[in-house]
Amino acid sequence: MGLGMHLGAWRHREGAATDYLDLDYYTEIAKVAEDAKLHAVFLSDTLALSEENLQRPNLGALDPVVVLSALAASTSRIGLIATSSTTFNEPYNLARRLASLDQLSRGRAGWNAVTTFVPDVAANFGTAALAEHDRRYEQAEEFVDVVVALWRSWLDGALVGDKAGGVFADPARVHPINHAGDRFTVRGPLTLPRSPQGHPVLVQAGSSERGRALAARSAEIVFTAQNTLAAAWEFSRDLKARAQALGRDPDDLKVLPGIVPIVGSTRAEAQHRKAELDRFAGDAELVKLAVRVGVPVSALDLDKPLPVELIRANTEFNASHGFRDAAVRLTEEEGLTVRELLYRNGGGHLQVVGTAEDVADELATWFTSGAADGFNLMIDELPSGLCRFTDGVVPLLRERGLFQHDYTGRTLRENLGLRPPPDTPENP
Amino acid sequence: MGLGMHLGAWRHREGAATDYLDLDYYTEIAKVAEDAKLHAVFLSDTLALSEENLQRPNLGALDPVVVLSALAASTSRIGLIATSSTTFNEPYNLARRLASLDQLSRGRAGWNAVTTFVPDVAANFGTAALAEHDRRYEQAEEFVDVVVALWRSWLDGALVGDKAGGVFADPARVHPINHAGDRFTVRGPLTLPRSPQGHPVLVQAGSSERGRALAARSAEIVFTAQNTLAAAWEFSRDLKARAQALGRDPDDLKVLPGIVPIVGSTRAEAQHRKAELDRFAGDAELVKLAVRVGVPVSALDLDKPLPVELIRANTEFNASHGFRDAAVRLTEEEGLTVRELLYRNGGGHLQVVGTAEDVADELATWFTSGAADGFNLMIDELPSGLCRFTDGVVPLLRERGLFQHDYTGRTLRENLGLRPPPDTPENP
Repeated sequence: MGLGMHLGAWRHREGAATDYLDLDYYTEIAKVAEDAKLHAVFLSDTLALSEENLQRPNLGALDPVVVLSALAASTSRIGLIATSSTTFNEPYNLARRLASLDQLSRGRAGWNAVTTFVPDVAANFGTAALAEHDRRYEQAEEFVDVVVALWRSWLDGALVGDKAGGVFADPARVHPINHAGDRFTVRGPLTLPRSPQGHPVLVQAGSSERGRALAARSAEIVFTAQNTLAAAWEFSRDLKARAQALGRDPDDLKVLPGIVPIVGSTRAEAQHRKAELDRFAGDAELVKLAVRVGVPVSALDLDKPLPVELIRANTEFNASHGFRDAAVRLTEEEGLTVRELLYRNGGGHLQVVGTAEDVADELATWFTSGAADGFNLMIDELPSGLCRFTDGVVPLLRERGLFQHDYTGRTLRENLGLRPPPDTPENP
Repeated sequence: MGLGMHLGAWRHREGAATDYLDLDYYTEIAKVAEDAKLHAVFLSDTLALSEENLQRPNLGALDPVVVLSALAASTSRIGLIATSSTTFNEPYNLARRLASLDQLSRGRAGWNAVTTFVPDVAANFGTAALAEHDRRYEQAEEFVDVVVALWRSWLDGALVGDKAGGVFADPARVHPINHAGDRFTVRGPLTLPRSPQGHPVLVQAGSSERGRALAARSAEIVFTAQNTLAAAWEFSRDLKARAQALGRDPDDLKVLPGIVPIVGSTRAEAQHRKAELDRFAGDAELVKLAVRVGVPVSALDLDKPLPVELIRANTEFNASHGFRDAAVRLTEEEGLTVRELLYRNGGGHLQVVGTAEDVADELATWFTSGAADGFNLMIDELPSGLCRFTDGVVPLLRERGLFQHDYTGRTLRENLGLRPPPDTPENP
């Protein structure tokens, strides 16, 4: 969430460019989403100012936990999911911060655990070079284990709260975690008891081999870039099989592909909206695609397919495998030109340009075929694109019995159909 | 802020022991304070669960930035000051987090920069031993410099926001900080522009030699434990002289002693309130005093003075000098027994037990004599003790022309009479 997923949104939309710093703006969006009974607000995180961030408002410039904490006060049912890096945080601080949000929101928090691959960020944290991809994931695994163990360090009923008897907590139900691993040494316990949902919902977004392994082991939601139904279906099947092989119930892991809906009252109007957004973006979407696939922008020709061999030849590639692989696959399977790819692949995610019916059809197909358990909406422009979705697409999905008329539970975990964490201490 | 500064508050007060986890509780307190036109809400921070924290609700169990971010949404004028450690954070993350709060609150944030001296905390951050006192302050100096430089990395007017012309920011007004110091290497710039108040107000609480040096150099507010008027006056004079020697205007540094008002409709009623709170606290206040002065609790006798020689003999002492020195001074100058000291020294801060007039008299004396530029209210029990203060003491201070009838500015900095930061990049 920011001024919109589309890089031209800030110039196309009504409202000031400074809205991305304004709490009223975020509150309006959260309330529209909550009125429509969407499950959660999901915020990204950016730990450096890149050159690109001087060209337009930056998704993630504000600390997402700060924004979501403010939204905890102005909403009551919608989930609040913050992205936060396992590469540049201390696990105790992060566990406590998310647990605090979970308490104040009465069990509506989620944590999207990401590894960070941006050299601009490393320069802000005294790290000369970033660890290569697999090493980042090794660290992420240990980090996630520590955070979850801290979240479970108070068992249910540990907070007694007996004022008359003077018994605040039951020490027998509060456990240090005594973690001493390769990268972290953390004694615990956390400063906070379990929240109404046990602990924040654990979200991950890795699509590489290591990313999938981590997700299968611990994620409850997986956010993924999938541009074709077949690829999404395969990805979901693979992830759930891995989870099952580790003794988990595959239903405990929900796979949510990202989707960029560009909705119009007619297809022509939707295409016009996209063309206007594109006009304001200039070549920014092309530059972003080049970075995502790891080649210079000069290697891309709008009227030719992606240079797949050149992409594969880049052995230094250290960024998100999910985005790169989705773009390559779409190119190879459908023979798209870069121009066509940009149309279908909105900033790396599936883009659907059309009427509310078109979008509802696409979502329904993915959902009913088992390619998706739901979707992460990447709204083109905020709040207008969200209103087009909630006013147009949501009612159609409800008619088809595919979307909730109201929240079914009080916590994010309940609303997502996820089970509470076990009531046992978990030492990593 | 929590369930109250007094360790017996959680049992004495109305309301559940779990209120310290409840956003409604914090919102109520902030609104009472804002209705009375108090300048700010000031939250502490606790990075570990100690045994004591299983005996009563913990001031600072929740991440203070999370609580204050939520309060940014439910208040509009009051300042929001978060304590956060220079020992266990990354300066880039902290600078961005506080700047985010400052943006969303439209210029109402403050940062109380503390060094952390609790071994329980070190165990949660993979640090076998804590750096000794002076080394912590060396790190704090560099940390504060980096944070302030990041806050100033966007100059005024850097965010252009010209949608028609497609000019979002002026790169000539956004500067990397290129800090490469003994402990931190941070390139910058920050992800965020300056806020309506420039950047968060900088608060510090050090009373040792190194703490005073740091405060004189960079603090805008100094929070201090002072138990006698003479000591407070000396402290303030010393700090302002140090600031002046460094080329600062002494008015740019506001000294706020902590005060614990225990207010009753009569003196007897106030004493009864204190006795009831004490009864619920048991020996907890005595234990806390022993920790604060660095001796075993068995060395304290309620009917004798503090064992000053034993306290001075503890060369291993590595905690707050301010609390220890205030208690020692009160003992030496007034010959108090430990019992009397506990009565006057509420959790380390000056305690005044009496009517609203008594409290107003004490505050007026300190303020008009130049011993204090204001006070940090440490409320015995929340929210009841705050209401006693705002209903009883605030109107008396207004009658005497000593307290504002309304906020005078839009930002915390304006309301405190502090000047905006210079519009120049500051490289540490």
